[in-house]
Amino acid sequence: MSKDNPSSNPAAKLWGGRFSEATDAFVERFTASVTFDQRMAREDIEGSLAHAQMLAEVGVLTNEEYSKIAAGLKAIAAEIEAGEFPWEVGLEDVHMNIEARLTERIGDTGKKLHTGRSRNDQVATDIRLWLRNRIDLIAAELTRLQGGLVDLAEREADTIMPGFTHLQSAQPVTFGHHLLAWNEMLNRDYERLMDCRKRVNRSPLGAAALAGTTYPIDRARTAELLGFEAPTENSLDSVSDRDFAIEFCAFAALLLTHLSRASEELVLWTSSQFDFIDLPDRFCTGSSIMPQKKNPDVPELVRGKTGRVNGHLIALLTLMKSQPLAYNKDNQEDKEPLYDAADTALDCLRAFADMVPALKPKKENMLAAAAKGFSTATDLADYLVRKGVAFRDAHEIVGQSVSFAIAQNKDLAELSLEQLRQFSNVIGEDVFEVLTLEGSVAARDHIGGTAPNQVRAACARARKALEAR
Amino acid sequence: MSKDNPSSNPAAKLWGGRFSEATDAFVERFTASVTFDQRMAREDIEGSLAHAQMLAEVGVLTNEEYSKIAAGLKAIAAEIEAGEFPWEVGLEDVHMNIEARLTERIGDTGKKLHTGRSRNDQVATDIRLWLRNRIDLIAAELTRLQGGLVDLAEREADTIMPGFTHLQSAQPVTFGHHLLAWNEMLNRDYERLMDCRKRVNRSPLGAAALAGTTYPIDRARTAELLGFEAPTENSLDSVSDRDFAIEFCAFAALLLTHLSRASEELVLWTSSQFDFIDLPDRFCTGSSIMPQKKNPDVPELVRGKTGRVNGHLIALLTLMKSQPLAYNKDNQEDKEPLYDAADTALDCLRAFADMVPALKPKKENMLAAAAKGFSTATDLADYLVRKGVAFRDAHEIVGQSVSFAIAQNKDLAELSLEQLRQFSNVIGEDVFEVLTLEGSVAARDHIGGTAPNQVRAACARARKALEAR
Amino acid sequence: MSKDNPSSNPAAKLWGGRFSEATDAFVERFTASVTFDQRMAREDIEGSLAHAQMLAEVGVLTNEEYSKIAAGLKAIAAEIEAGEFPWEVGLEDVHMNIEARLTERIGDTGKKLHTGRSRNDQVATDIRLWLRNRIDLIAAELTRLQGGLVDLAEREADTIMPGFTHLQSAQPVTFGHHLLAWNEMLNRDYERLMDCRKRVNRSPLGAAALAGTTYPIDRARTAELLGFEAPTENSLDSVSDRDFAIEFCAFAALLLTHLSRASEELVLWTSSQFDFIDLPDRFCTGSSIMPQKKNPDVPELVRGKTGRVNGHLIALLTLMKSQPLAYNKDNQEDKEPLYDAADTALDCLRAFADMVPALKPKKENMLAAAAKGFSTATDLADYLVRKGVAFRDAHEIVGQSVSFAIAQNKDLAELSLEQLRQFSNVIGEDVFEVLTLEGSVAARDHIGGTAPNQVRAACARARKALEAR
Amino acid sequence: MSKDNPSSNPAAKLWGGRFSEATDAFVERFTASVTFDQRMAREDIEGSLAHAQMLAEVGVLTNEEYSKIAAGLKAIAAEIEAGEFPWEVGLEDVHMNIEARLTERIGDTGKKLHTGRSRNDQVATDIRLWLRNRIDLIAAELTRLQGGLVDLAEREADTIMPGFTHLQSAQPVTFGHHLLAWNEMLNRDYERLMDCRKRVNRSPLGAAALAGTTYPIDRARTAELLGFEAPTENSLDSVSDRDFAIEFCAFAALLLTHLSRASEELVLWTSSQFDFIDLPDRFCTGSSIMPQKKNPDVPELVRGKTGRVNGHLIALLTLMKSQPLAYNKDNQEDKEPLYDAADTALDCLRAFADMVPALKPKKENMLAAAAKGFSTATDLADYLVRKGVAFRDAHEIVGQSVSFAIAQNKDLAELSLEQLRQFSNVIGEDVFEVLTLEGSVAARDHIGGTAPNQVRAACARARKALEAR
Repeated sequence: MSKDNPSSNPAAKLWGGRFSEATDAFVERFTASVTFDQRMAREDIEGSLAHAQMLAEVGVLTNEEYSKIAAGLKAIAAEIEAGEFPWEVGLEDVHMNIEARLTERIGDTGKKLHTGRSRNDQVATDIRLWLRNRIDLIAAELTRLQGGLVDLAEREADTIMPGFTHLQSAQPVTFGHHLLAWNEMLNRDYERLMDCRKRVNRSPLGAAALAGTTYPIDRARTAELLGFEAPTENSLDSVSDRDFAIEFCAFAALLLTHLSRASEELVLWTSSQFDFIDLPDRFCTGSSIMPQKKNPDVPELVRGKTGRVNGHLIALLTLMKSQPLAYNKDNQEDKEPLYDAADTALDCLRAFADMVPALKPKKENMLAAAAKGFSTATDLADYLVRKGVAFRDAHEIVGQSVSFAIAQNKDLAELSLEQLRQFSNVIGEDVFEVLTLEGSVAARDHIGGTAPNQVRAACARARKALEAR
Repeated sequence: MSKDNPSSNPAAKLWGGRFSEATDAFVERFTASVTFDQRMAREDIEGSLAHAQMLAEVGVLTNEEYSKIAAGLKAIAAEIEAGEFPWEVGLEDVHMNIEARLTERIGDTGKKLHTGRSRNDQVATDIRLWLRNRIDLIAAELTRLQGGLVDLAEREADTIMPGFTHLQSAQPVTFGHHLLAWNEMLNRDYERLMDCRKRVNRSPLGAAALAGTTYPIDRARTAELLGFEAPTENSLDSVSDRDFAIEFCAFAALLLTHLSRASEELVLWTSSQFDFIDLPDRFCTGSSIMPQKKNPDVPELVRGKTGRVNGHLIALLTLMKSQPLAYNKDNQEDKEPLYDAADTALDCLRAFADMVPALKPKKENMLAAAAKGFSTATDLADYLVRKGVAFRDAHEIVGQSVSFAIAQNKDLAELSLEQLRQFSNVIGEDVFEVLTLEGSVAARDHIGGTAPNQVRAACARARKALEAR
Repeated sequence: MSKDNPSSNPAAKLWGGRFSEATDAFVERFTASVTFDQRMAREDIEGSLAHAQMLAEVGVLTNEEYSKIAAGLKAIAAEIEAGEFPWEVGLEDVHMNIEARLTERIGDTGKKLHTGRSRNDQVATDIRLWLRNRIDLIAAELTRLQGGLVDLAEREADTIMPGFTHLQSAQPVTFGHHLLAWNEMLNRDYERLMDCRKRVNRSPLGAAALAGTTYPIDRARTAELLGFEAPTENSLDSVSDRDFAIEFCAFAALLLTHLSRASEELVLWTSSQFDFIDLPDRFCTGSSIMPQKKNPDVPELVRGKTGRVNGHLIALLTLMKSQPLAYNKDNQEDKEPLYDAADTALDCLRAFADMVPALKPKKENMLAAAAKGFSTATDLADYLVRKGVAFRDAHEIVGQSVSFAIAQNKDLAELSLEQLRQFSNVIGEDVFEVLTLEGSVAARDHIGGTAPNQVRAACARARKALEAR
Repeated sequence: MSKDNPSSNPAAKLWGGRFSEATDAFVERFTASVTFDQRMAREDIEGSLAHAQMLAEVGVLTNEEYSKIAAGLKAIAAEIEAGEFPWEVGLEDVHMNIEARLTERIGDTGKKLHTGRSRNDQVATDIRLWLRNRIDLIAAELTRLQGGLVDLAEREADTIMPGFTHLQSAQPVTFGHHLLAWNEMLNRDYERLMDCRKRVNRSPLGAAALAGTTYPIDRARTAELLGFEAPTENSLDSVSDRDFAIEFCAFAALLLTHLSRASEELVLWTSSQFDFIDLPDRFCTGSSIMPQKKNPDVPELVRGKTGRVNGHLIALLTLMKSQPLAYNKDNQEDKEPLYDAADTALDCLRAFADMVPALKPKKENMLAAAAKGFSTATDLADYLVRKGVAFRDAHEIVGQSVSFAIAQNKDLAELSLEQLRQFSNVIGEDVFEVLTLEGSVAARDHIGGTAPNQVRAACARARKALEAR
């Protein structure tokens, strides 16, 4: 290493006074975080600006010092934005890189910026600012996706398809109703994201290394300048808390689990066996060997990405397990999982938000599938109950009718009245209305039910809720 | 199998009409859930009572039928409470066992209970009721633990101990301040638990199998009778949603992670190397071979239990990944992890709530440890800054002073003024006040700082918040 | 607590000498393991018998003492087998319960059994013995399942079905070939299980508490008596090592992942959309509301059980993370996940081993599905290559042919020679042989390929390998 | 998008024949893998060279074609090595990028390379080659670390320290013995790594898309050329199997768990409370605020990295759960976790292999700590047994002696003979030899025990085993 490289000289390290031996080059790379935490450069500068302004307001810095620092930081921000910042692995992390550069640019005044804070509270502030930004982007994309879902659900409020349990045709539902089930999952994701945001949006700045600081800082002021709801309550906790990252990953894992379920359905529905949906070419790719293939790559990939987010959640839980207070170096490992979980959530939502409005249901196929598999058998049972049969007995009667129909290779509605009456003589001509798909769907006419007018009402409520966000 | 055992006879199964072959005995055991889901018997009956009352109110049952059903269910509840209920694996689950027993007791009217619902919405209702109860117990225990923490923190607001980062002595803090850091973690756990409770407390009853039902049910009424905030919005989602279980496990994983951190500290503090704390015998056990041992079993075990809760979270996330709508048999696997996560959370909180008030700090040991390790070095740096040195230069000066003191085998406060002035001539007599532990602690006098008066103020705020729950 | 209950009296605890305060009743239950570890009672006695025999052989016990101990232990074994053993939570664990009972039965000689060992090496020995037994049961069930798979694969070596990638029909394969893919997964599971068994089968007995013992024990002798390959090498490691449990759970997680994949396929194949397979009634259950339903419960449940095993793996990894040597109480948490992982693996294998031979392929449906979706398009490309077209150009030509066929709503084989020659004039009459399913399948005639004779040869090799186990 | 960018033109995609719409730009980036899979470029070319050579040998390519292809591929390898390869996201992945470049360089012959294979078997081959390389590097680093451990253990075979259970001083051990416990953990890791390597080292090449290929390929030949043990047995399995990646991550998770345990101990031992070890400066870093700090960053960071590897294991298990055969796009998600798990394992081993030989035990501190905490109490019990007392009674007697000594604020060896004889009159003058640390350690003289001569013998065996690798 050359003399010119400050990173190879321990004295050049900002904490180097106590050390007598140069950091091993491999160890330097191994322990540095600047290769990934430079991603928070903007937030680091934002936090430093607020800190310096507060220091000036309480008299720890002069106004002139503050002005120099602010100008220097803004120039550095521009340098970073332009891709011209000389990142140094030897300076460990984003904080040291920017502080060292500040002193390089504005001279000794730069050495005053770190007064009354530590990297421990600084990094906690940076991550929270960064995550708050991502949460807001994710919330917007979630709302866009839900908007598309509700629009499609309303258009398809009357489109009949089989409703499945155990992947067996169970009862007819409408495609709009099915889409609203996805929307409900996403509604809960949105609620959880907002609940998480509350806890992200508190300011650890001023906790310093772990115990607070001896300077007359104003933590409420920096919190206000940075748009935080309030300062955190305890300095030891402030520098060691990574709950917000874990809670965010738990949100993301559940979001991706929901998207994996929708993806699984899209993959099923685009198979030639189901053939319920047409997925536009731009969400598909082909095969290097099989020229006929059109693969539903986007939903498959989203489904696969569930794994990485579950993994990040476990990574962070494992990380924090059994850590004594306050800050430990282990915590440097919090960033990569968090970054990737946020990126994955955002990308997958974007892919879905683009894709959902482009889904084209193949209505005849859906209808034909709903007509098979005795999907109105429950309606027959309900019919019998209305004629005075106890439900459990009605269930038994219909079970026998289905067995008979299978043996005859017919559907229930194809049996004659006589054949049906073998199993119960309360059955009359009016039974055939009950056995139609349209009748079945329309009859489930209560809040949450699949009747088209209920679906339309649910769409209206959902749209209103989205608008109120 | 004998005739007397209804479970060996497929016709005796409530859904047996369609089947021609007896369930294989191993398969019967393998697929049954009654061995564990009987734990929700009380909630199952509670849900059935509300359902039946609503059916009577809307005219699907007569009042007489309802009265018979209600009386039957209450008698069954008593039977279960008394441990006299004849659970049958052949009847699969808690729902079928109770319904079959009802018909056995009250005759054919019992067969009408299942009108307008399905096991799919029934089990979702039962789990939510069960979990809501556990959440309330957990919340109470959490509050009890926090109360004990705050009391102890207040008593120990002046007790000085070393604050650690990287398990190295960093700066002195007070023991009260440290305990309040634990309290902050638990505060967030409480918030998350309440956020989770909101989403648990919605009624899926009336979603029936997946599409709603053809009976004129009143979902808002059953929701009200069961104390739910509102009915859920979509029937397909209602029967397939297990978010609440996952969200609860995520809460529990984070709670246990917090308790594992406190446990790790208790284990460290009771080691003879630290010797900061005395843990009463009743939270310890001995050794079968080493007669002198007194092991901190309770914190060790709580620390170990973090694993099982992380595991349950992953179990449930894995379970739901890629499941198409609506209900699949896979979901039967939701209960055991959820039960155990709730039990573990409750037991560990109880153990901590009992243990915390009994912790006895060994104040002299804590103080002696804080006096070592140059823990007031930051105070010296801050002193230099107040004398006009830039922070980064002050940091360098103190680093050199520490190196010198180590070489002399002395602490900073043991150096002479002359020796200190070798490194900076701004140092004066007043430096020695700054280097005391009491001075260091008292100087961190802002919200979240470790100054005793801040700790006491924080205790007051914390107590008020607990009282307002 | 009454006088009669030894568990409420600390002096009655085998390690109670040092303690002055009774264990709190809740803490007693919280820290006890006997409710679950009594499951290893047989192995505990087996280990004690070997230990006592060795102690007699090296002269630490007299032969008479050994005889009394051995007789006492065997009587206790019988008592346990008969369900008459008086388990006491107050005696903490299986080891203390049995030792206390021994002394109760044979008097003071019983107090000599624990000479030269500790519960730390004792429990490690018990778990390894227990796990070795389960591994052998699991291996047998795995082999039974594989035997059934190979038989079925051979019977179905010519049965054509669509091969899928991306759940899109890709190329025709045979059902026998598909089943052999499952067999390969299970082969690797078997290899991993045997690799794991090697590491389970080493004897920690004699490591005592952590450092070995001062008695002249013969560790090789106890290892031999218990059928272990050898004693472990290091006493500290011996009492703290739980690798074998983690490695077993990793085996089980991968096994269940494989079974989840096969289960997913069975669920798909029994859907009315695919309709490739008939699953006997005894592996299915019905619906409480929908009388027509026949749900593939067994594969669904196996698929769901993947979650719990993944969870147990994470539980154990979390448990061991950051534990300092040697034994810590945390390790008590190793048993429940391990037990359940072993039970789950065994039950799921049993369910599959029973089910696989009963699978009935619906050959016409499989064949009809294979005929759709341009599954011989690759064969056309290969044909073109054999006529001298570069593969990448052939791929392009076939892509255009498929587009044309889709527009014509025809399959490739339904296009006329003229139509095909639009895209390449090297195409001749002989192309139509290539486009048949039988031709396509038979042409993949190399090791690992789907040609029926390759499938039969693979079955023969597989059967030979199973026989050689 | 401009004409110049081939990636925006679907026809330019190698599988574009069938498609009518350009891939959406975001989707293109979202679904592409070339940003990360270019890491396997060397292995991709290695695989292509073997494939092309085999194709020439069986007559599918002419020798001239093979020569052109081989020359082209080697030129591309050089281009990549030099960092001059024009990677295109629009060409999706490493395979397509290299193939397209080959055709660009050598013309239409390049289009023949993909004959008889698919990306599905190609990528499986690439990953296995890549992973085999990393395994060999990891094995070498593991051996280096173990060599250092054994050397240090031998040097410290007589160094007495406290052995801990429950982090309480239990019995004295030697530092060498403790280090050998670490070595045993790593021995098992090495075994598992080699077991995993067997299963990595099989060739999927020739499985083609999923069913094999119609060309007369020689799979055994490509396996041989690539150094694989044998071809895989089943084509469907070959393209969908990711067991090797999961098994490797399970290895890595257990390795990191072991390193986390050693790291935890290093962090404890470098705390001023334990102060057992001096860690050279180059493995430590300082604080930005506290000038006196010297933090054990390397062990802390290694401990933290356990999380990411556990996470990757879960990511891959989640990924594969419930995937139907054969290849699905989800599998693209296998690479990043696998790469990072391998990098993490290698880096952490390297850090430890560098650090271990530099550990400096502080022998006096270790000895002093061992002398405290009644660590020879078990020796007293064993002494009593040798005098004829039953072990359980001896245990009780020693427990009382310890209580008495605590009350007297003395250690056991500091009690007078008279005082000791209060508890048992079999105690004689010779008891004091037994209560020395040296006597205690030397007495544990059997295989696996902590006696210095056993430690030295164990070192010799360990060294021999390492040399035999």
